[in-house]
Amino acid sequence: MSNEERIRELPAAADVDVLVAMSPENFTYVSGAYILTVLSVRPRQAFAVLPRKGEPAAVVCSIEQSTMADESWIRDVRTYTEFVDHPIDTLVDLLVERGLTRGRLGIDLAYLPQASYARLIARLPELEVVDTTDAVAAVRTYKSAEEVAILERAAKVTHRAIVEAMAASHLGETEKTMANRIVHGMVEGGAVGTDFVCFGSGERTRMPHAQPNGRVPRESEIIRFDVGARFSQWTSDMARTYSTGNPTAMQREVYRLLCEAQAATIGMIRPGVLAEDVYYACKEEFEKRGLTWWLPHVGHSFGIELHENPMLRPGERTPLAAGMVLNIEPFVFDDERIGYHTEDLLVVTGDGHRLLTYGLAPTELPVIGQAVATIVPGLAS
Amino acid sequence: MSNEERIRELPAAADVDVLVAMSPENFTYVSGAYILTVLSVRPRQAFAVLPRKGEPAAVVCSIEQSTMADESWIRDVRTYTEFVDHPIDTLVDLLVERGLTRGRLGIDLAYLPQASYARLIARLPELEVVDTTDAVAAVRTYKSAEEVAILERAAKVTHRAIVEAMAASHLGETEKTMANRIVHGMVEGGAVGTDFVCFGSGERTRMPHAQPNGRVPRESEIIRFDVGARFSQWTSDMARTYSTGNPTAMQREVYRLLCEAQAATIGMIRPGVLAEDVYYACKEEFEKRGLTWWLPHVGHSFGIELHENPMLRPGERTPLAAGMVLNIEPFVFDDERIGYHTEDLLVVTGDGHRLLTYGLAPTELPVIGQAVATIVPGLAS
Repeated sequence: MSNEERIRELPAAADVDVLVAMSPENFTYVSGAYILTVLSVRPRQAFAVLPRKGEPAAVVCSIEQSTMADESWIRDVRTYTEFVDHPIDTLVDLLVERGLTRGRLGIDLAYLPQASYARLIARLPELEVVDTTDAVAAVRTYKSAEEVAILERAAKVTHRAIVEAMAASHLGETEKTMANRIVHGMVEGGAVGTDFVCFGSGERTRMPHAQPNGRVPRESEIIRFDVGARFSQWTSDMARTYSTGNPTAMQREVYRLLCEAQAATIGMIRPGVLAEDVYYACKEEFEKRGLTWWLPHVGHSFGIELHENPMLRPGERTPLAAGMVLNIEPFVFDDERIGYHTEDLLVVTGDGHRLLTYGLAPTELPVIGQAVATIVPGLAS
Repeated sequence: MSNEERIRELPAAADVDVLVAMSPENFTYVSGAYILTVLSVRPRQAFAVLPRKGEPAAVVCSIEQSTMADESWIRDVRTYTEFVDHPIDTLVDLLVERGLTRGRLGIDLAYLPQASYARLIARLPELEVVDTTDAVAAVRTYKSAEEVAILERAAKVTHRAIVEAMAASHLGETEKTMANRIVHGMVEGGAVGTDFVCFGSGERTRMPHAQPNGRVPRESEIIRFDVGARFSQWTSDMARTYSTGNPTAMQREVYRLLCEAQAATIGMIRPGVLAEDVYYACKEEFEKRGLTWWLPHVGHSFGIELHENPMLRPGERTPLAAGMVLNIEPFVFDDERIGYHTEDLLVVTGDGHRLLTYGLAPTELPVIGQAVATIVPGLAS
């Protein structure tokens, strides 16, 4: 079944008379239109409306009409004027016109603000409103070949930018200067901009989301970063760990063990394995190497949402299946509470998996300013 | 009154027994900590809890504990383990411990998802839950000198990047190549990355949020862009319009009239003027120049949220006051439905306003590849 067929089947599959996709990710996925202010100007709500019987429709802010016409497959687009009309009222008008004022309405209750929900049920009190956040997200879990190609390009652009930036960096530079090189490389490679740039050295590696700043890393320190580039509604998400030079034996060892644990975890990924089994496998790989375990998850499904289901976490018993795209990202602290992190993207295939980055990080702790052994085409190894 | 005093006064001012700030902006503002995944991984909710009597507290995901310790003034920080504990349950435990199980609780009902709200009131049914989204946002409207300095730096970094990038661009390049120059300039100037990059040429100027792509603008076309750089929780937001060269008389005229209308609108900004009066003034400036009016707003308060209150729109009767930071951004279409847009940031002062960009755009339509008359220090004019 294609993704478009899955989308059209959603109301029946979720057993609702009408399904309304309105979280930024679910709206984008169902409508096909990327309206960035749905996220950054939240009162500018957008709704993709799929009746069980009848044609789909959408409600968007009037200024987004041109984007809908250009990008969405939905032809019946209703608009509201910001500040004059409340988006919920325009949605209600559409539902009334379609005779959808009672029965079951599915909507993203894990996103819809309580104030909007209250306005909806005040206007249409006979509706039974149920949560379909996860029902739509579940469809997003299975990527089409086209989606995999977009995510693979984003991953490879990011990987190349990282490898080139770290090879060009050296002691005496600030975190910010090094992080800038990654950003430049991602944008030159095709990204529109950045989604997030976390970059810390020394003690700052322990903050999961440190912002790069003017700190000048010292020799024998660790640098850890986790970056995402933006490609319209798509992003990348990749982490790596480097030494600033002259690493200690302990640092090299912790890093090598982390990389081995990641490789072993990835090695077991194939259809049928439960999501939580990947988590427990990674935990076992840590423990048998003497690495301290602390992770609430070891990775996540990835698409137009940064963390999608299935999360690779205890209690998530979804079996992996072909078409899922996953990040595997173990993170460990050494005895001095310095953080080491490595993260790669893969797609689950019919009989295993395929890496979407150029390849896992070398198990020998890489040093900034040195070309690392990697399989990025066109780079000296 | 300082912002910290205003924050501490919030529960009394909003007439609640406890105030919970949890939208990404309200949490960041009240706690002082920037946790970027509060926005990008939404189930990772964070709550800043201000009881009317007693010490403030916070609830965050365990992996953000180090960021809280580093950045927040709140000392009583409770953590939950992702996927093991529900953040709402950890919040409830805190409220129970503090004896705050009845009375009035204020929270961001314009952000709190309905599913989280339902969990909260199921656990604490005697609470009266009221919406304090706007009460917290109202405090954010008044910027401290330190906040104005951050926003001014972000605005000037962005302005310089724009002027330099467009002076370096030329016919034959793609939209993406030109937009990349802006991104590079913003990052070199100090931004961590980008918040948004909208860039369109020719017919694509009519899409408010077009993403730069491989289109090569032709001579005598219009380029319109609106970009924001990211500085941790802060951003910039600036729009400009350029010609690709050999502009038509009509294009120069529409652009000049737009700039005049913006300057006239900005000229009236001083304390006491109502927000909606700025809107109506801009409308009048358009109409007396024969420009077609279509805007739902002509600008917005600006801070850690892209569009804050007061919006400069009909019905918003908040008087402008010293310390407000506002974007003024008129946008017009010509007879061929090509979009022209210009946007500058200012702060309202005791007796007027002060621009936070380097200066308004020249009224003569600037052409890419040519240095424009501007007051950016160190640039040839």
